Amino acid sequence: MSVIYLDFNRTTPMAPSVVEAMKPYWQTHFMLPGQEHAHAQAIGESLEHAREGVAALAGCEPFEIVFTGGGTEANNLGILGLVDGQRQRNGRADFSQRQLQSSRLRPASYDTQSATPDRDANQDDQPRHPEVGNDANWQVPGHILVSELEHESVLGAAARLAQFGWDIETVPADKNGICDAEAFESRLRDDTRLACLQLANPVLGTIQPVRETADACHSRGVLVHCDATQAFGKIPVDVKALRADMVSISGHKFYGPKGSGAIYVRRGLHLCPILFGEAREMGLRPGAENIPACIGLGAAASMAARCASDVSDTLTDLRNYFCNGLISSLSNGAVLLCEDAARLPNTIAIELPGEARRIQRAARQLVFATAQSDSPPDEITRALRAIQRTDYQIGRTVRFSLGWTSSHDQVDRAIELIADACDTLSR
Amino acid sequence: MSVIYLDFNRTTPMAPSVVEAMKPYWQTHFMLPGQEHAHAQAIGESLEHAREGVAALAGCEPFEIVFTGGGTEANNLGILGLVDGQRQRNGRADFSQRQLQSSRLRPASYDTQSATPDRDANQDDQPRHPEVGNDANWQVPGHILVSELEHESVLGAAARLAQFGWDIETVPADKNGICDAEAFESRLRDDTRLACLQLANPVLGTIQPVRETADACHSRGVLVHCDATQAFGKIPVDVKALRADMVSISGHKFYGPKGSGAIYVRRGLHLCPILFGEAREMGLRPGAENIPACIGLGAAASMAARCASDVSDTLTDLRNYFCNGLISSLSNGAVLLCEDAARLPNTIAIELPGEARRIQRAARQLVFATAQSDSPPDEITRALRAIQRTDYQIGRTVRFSLGWTSSHDQVDRAIELIADACDTLSR
Repeated sequence: MSVIYLDFNRTTPMAPSVVEAMKPYWQTHFMLPGQEHAHAQAIGESLEHAREGVAALAGCEPFEIVFTGGGTEANNLGILGLVDGQRQRNGRADFSQRQLQSSRLRPASYDTQSATPDRDANQDDQPRHPEVGNDANWQVPGHILVSELEHESVLGAAARLAQFGWDIETVPADKNGICDAEAFESRLRDDTRLACLQLANPVLGTIQPVRETADACHSRGVLVHCDATQAFGKIPVDVKALRADMVSISGHKFYGPKGSGAIYVRRGLHLCPILFGEAREMGLRPGAENIPACIGLGAAASMAARCASDVSDTLTDLRNYFCNGLISSLSNGAVLLCEDAARLPNTIAIELPGEARRIQRAARQLVFATAQSDSPPDEITRALRAIQRTDYQIGRTVRFSLGWTSSHDQVDRAIELIADACDTLSR
Repeated sequence: MSVIYLDFNRTTPMAPSVVEAMKPYWQTHFMLPGQEHAHAQAIGESLEHAREGVAALAGCEPFEIVFTGGGTEANNLGILGLVDGQRQRNGRADFSQRQLQSSRLRPASYDTQSATPDRDANQDDQPRHPEVGNDANWQVPGHILVSELEHESVLGAAARLAQFGWDIETVPADKNGICDAEAFESRLRDDTRLACLQLANPVLGTIQPVRETADACHSRGVLVHCDATQAFGKIPVDVKALRADMVSISGHKFYGPKGSGAIYVRRGLHLCPILFGEAREMGLRPGAENIPACIGLGAAASMAARCASDVSDTLTDLRNYFCNGLISSLSNGAVLLCEDAARLPNTIAIELPGEARRIQRAARQLVFATAQSDSPPDEITRALRAIQRTDYQIGRTVRFSLGWTSSHDQVDRAIELIADACDTLSR
């Protein structure tokens, strides 16, 4: 029985071009950039080429991209590394020489001094490079705003800071699955240091107003972290237009390798590493570079940059075809969620006329997502609760997410199987 | 020009069997264990099979193996995660519900209560499962002993703890490149909580007396972390016989994938995660499982377990042949370091009659390691300083490390090239 995969928001297969790009680095070009040989130096150049690919997709400078081991690590580095970095920068004296050495290894252009506010002053699409945080006292734990739609790794990193006295406040979503800029703005305090808002929700597909939120936050000197792991490869993402100070990227969400990821760190922003060891990745991540993973992420990024807007249109058509098919074949017994919000082109959160997990067992050929656990609540449950769905409704809701290999045939078959399952269960 | 690779301690190519084992998980079996489908569950079983492979190599139970993104992360988790875990266990009340939930997800057998001292009491090769640390007050920063031969990631994690008030004391090596048990024992204090001793030094190849050190530490209630990343795949490693409480493993050091690693965490020992998010890997590591990397590490471990002792003998012969050839062709102008110590079968640290980096440039066909930097000192420089080599000597010292694909022909050619280079430079 061939599987119809409708769970691309959870993970994706590696694209053939990604596998091809990585292949030479497993056994032939297996050296590390630090090794003393011309071959190793060539591998270092390949790594920088991959970084350029990611930077081109994100719309930033290559030196603003730090490779990580995935989206979770990127989110942790963005939040925990920022707090440490700002604290160090604010003159804390007892940081070890080791870390000072690490930051010395960064390119000069990475330093605050080289931020170029003049260049940006009259360019609306450029971030304003607010030197926020400089005047704030990061020595004393402050206030952090976190949208309630955030990924578990953002919430987890914030909860970690709560252990050290930081006040973490959750910003609620509205019924359309949006945390709007006003919701953030109204909660800003004098001691607010950071706001975390994802770009796209993995469950609802809703696209958050990151730019408006960033503008509101920056005007009060508050930094912004944006988890965009669900957006890359599905919609064009320009980190400068978003104006977030940090943006997380995950390779396996858009046909890159598992164990690959990156974080955009705006030029001039000072972070510290969260894992310790040799100074790699501009001093922000130790450990032997995972060259194949970085090359794979670069290849996935180049592919996404080439076809993101085409893909976006194709997926939107297919998604609408899927939604309409489901709703008509279920005799209007289905409720599409967050229909009025801007959404990812590939994501459908829909309440079905039947218990989701029983439908799942009946339609075994399909792979899609349902709520699995309410204590602790899984990602699906959390997102649906955030938009005030009842437990009964949550138990009947599924998330379909389409991908680059999804076809009309697959969608037709999925509609048929879901309709059959609902029909069987209702009898 | 084909390269003769003599730098296997730095990194290794992936073995063909490792690539083959990983291949199905890139594009076909690309799902994650948490997904709601039989295929995903099968992938979860493959992950556990890989864990069994690593456990078999290390000589422990599968649930004592936690997959990480590499050796550096394993060392960080062992040291930083332990301190947090012990602090939490000692009754600190303000840890978030999130983390308590994470630890609830661990299998019951992972809890302290299930440690079975009775079983082990009369078995000399079994660790004594000392319930060390329980009586100690981990709330107050204490004292940590770290061998001066440790990897940068162990030193970095310890330096991180120093920022929080921990007293980090370095244990010096002797001239043979050994940190002996007495050197640790004589430095134990009432507030010593942890000792870190690697199993094998990457530069000198010296094998450290981990078991004796662990016994001395345990008798004083002190836990032991052992970075064994340079030992796996080169010599048999039995973590129970070593008696260390935590042992780090790195995949790319023995023909596994880069970005793969693991840590053995003795049953009953309580760690906290160092990255935050969803509870995976028994609550100790969040983020989507890097299934291909784990499968690859499992395959590398199985291969190493099958042939580690054969490989060890073959490499010892080849290393001795290489050493003798070098010494005789250099007319006794070479000095083999740490000759009297137990050493890895593949590693040669040798002072040559000429400046190492000039020899390297002259013998461009060879890849081997030399000291690169003295501020901050690189790994080679640090190890050589630890055995009291002068800067002049360090500048003339190289590290050759052989691998499973090294041949007599390669070694003959290497001897020839090194002898030619030394000859040319001396004229």
